Amino acid sequence: MTNRYAIIVAGGSGSRMGITSPKQFLPIGGLPILMHTIRRFCSSDPDLQVSVVLPNEQFPVWKALCHQYNFTESIEVIAGGQTRFQSVRNGLAHIATNDGLVAVHDGVRPFVTTDLIQASFETASRTGSAVACVPLKDSVRLLAPDGSSQAVDRANYRLIQTPQTFQLALFRRAFQAEEQPFFTDCASVVDYAGYPITLIDGSYDNIKITTPEDLAIAEQKLRSVF
Amino acid sequence: MTNRYAIIVAGGSGSRMGITSPKQFLPIGGLPILMHTIRRFCSSDPDLQVSVVLPNEQFPVWKALCHQYNFTESIEVIAGGQTRFQSVRNGLAHIATNDGLVAVHDGVRPFVTTDLIQASFETASRTGSAVACVPLKDSVRLLAPDGSSQAVDRANYRLIQTPQTFQLALFRRAFQAEEQPFFTDCASVVDYAGYPITLIDGSYDNIKITTPEDLAIAEQKLRSVF
Repeated sequence: MTNRYAIIVAGGSGSRMGITSPKQFLPIGGLPILMHTIRRFCSSDPDLQVSVVLPNEQFPVWKALCHQYNFTESIEVIAGGQTRFQSVRNGLAHIATNDGLVAVHDGVRPFVTTDLIQASFETASRTGSAVACVPLKDSVRLLAPDGSSQAVDRANYRLIQTPQTFQLALFRRAFQAEEQPFFTDCASVVDYAGYPITLIDGSYDNIKITTPEDLAIAEQKLRSVF
Repeated sequence: MTNRYAIIVAGGSGSRMGITSPKQFLPIGGLPILMHTIRRFCSSDPDLQVSVVLPNEQFPVWKALCHQYNFTESIEVIAGGQTRFQSVRNGLAHIATNDGLVAVHDGVRPFVTTDLIQASFETASRTGSAVACVPLKDSVRLLAPDGSSQAVDRANYRLIQTPQTFQLALFRRAFQAEEQPFFTDCASVVDYAGYPITLIDGSYDNIKITTPEDLAIAEQKLRSVF
């Protein structure tokens, strides 16, 4: 049986929410967003080893929230870095083996489904990688250095989500790179190392909660599910 | 004084909402979305000549709604075509002059501001065009014909919104083209005719309401405004 790991990255400070509490700790449907996300992963596969990467200074709050919500999922909590790249690398450093698969997921994407998580591991085991994405709904234009722009065919583009799942050996090699400003997600790191990226179908429901409006949608989504 | 026109395109059937009522007629904050949108334009400029393009079969519903909500804004209602391109062309055919500016706007973007509308006309009067856009928040990948994909720098792309405002003479010439499958907005039509496109800053608040989640956000936005 392949070792399967999940690194849930929850490094946000909540600044875009206009609040001081980190957004991953805000409750939706009476439970902090991050706990919803962790549960989705834990319930997708009993053998999955789940870790959460949090800023060091948020450890006491997290511990208090776990007590408050009687949250007893078996996960490892790892200190994050200054950037997302560094946080993922810290998470990776806590995985002892080089054999298996690792999914990286945003802590503030609580609507990820078991189907998507399983599809992600299944595809990555065959091809080396599986990156969730969705088509663009809006028209898109490409800017030129001279300030002009041109229409591009949106059908040729995908908006990237998580989970992003990889074979551990190649993922570890990719994360030995020096951090680059264009590392906006794990796929861009693995891409930079020269490995091919397999895209899989994500979902418009798999939203990233980053603004107060997103929080309102999330509440709405939970109400329509339960 | 320059003639100023606005064509509000409201052709949607509501199929993405899972409802039979066209989405532009759904109420937010107690008033149909389309009426919010029209009011934003009418109140931005008393001299603006506003028309709404609606599918012919929706005329009776619209008339009933205007009666129900005592909606008396002075606008022209024009029959739409099979596609957005044809609907805009129908709207354009009802503008008699060739001298002035025309803004095209989605009926289901009710949060457009007076500032954005005015900036759009001001820029188009100087440069010929003004197309609202916002930067991308998500990572983006470009698909190749062989199924592979590559990371692209999202900083070089813009998601396109409306209003899209143009000098009438060039806009009319652009719309003489045969319809192309890649005409996803007016900018792509004007671009195809060889005219330069000027991008202006839209807003993340200027959302297009196309799904039930969008409707929930819209309600939330109205509550936070009033």
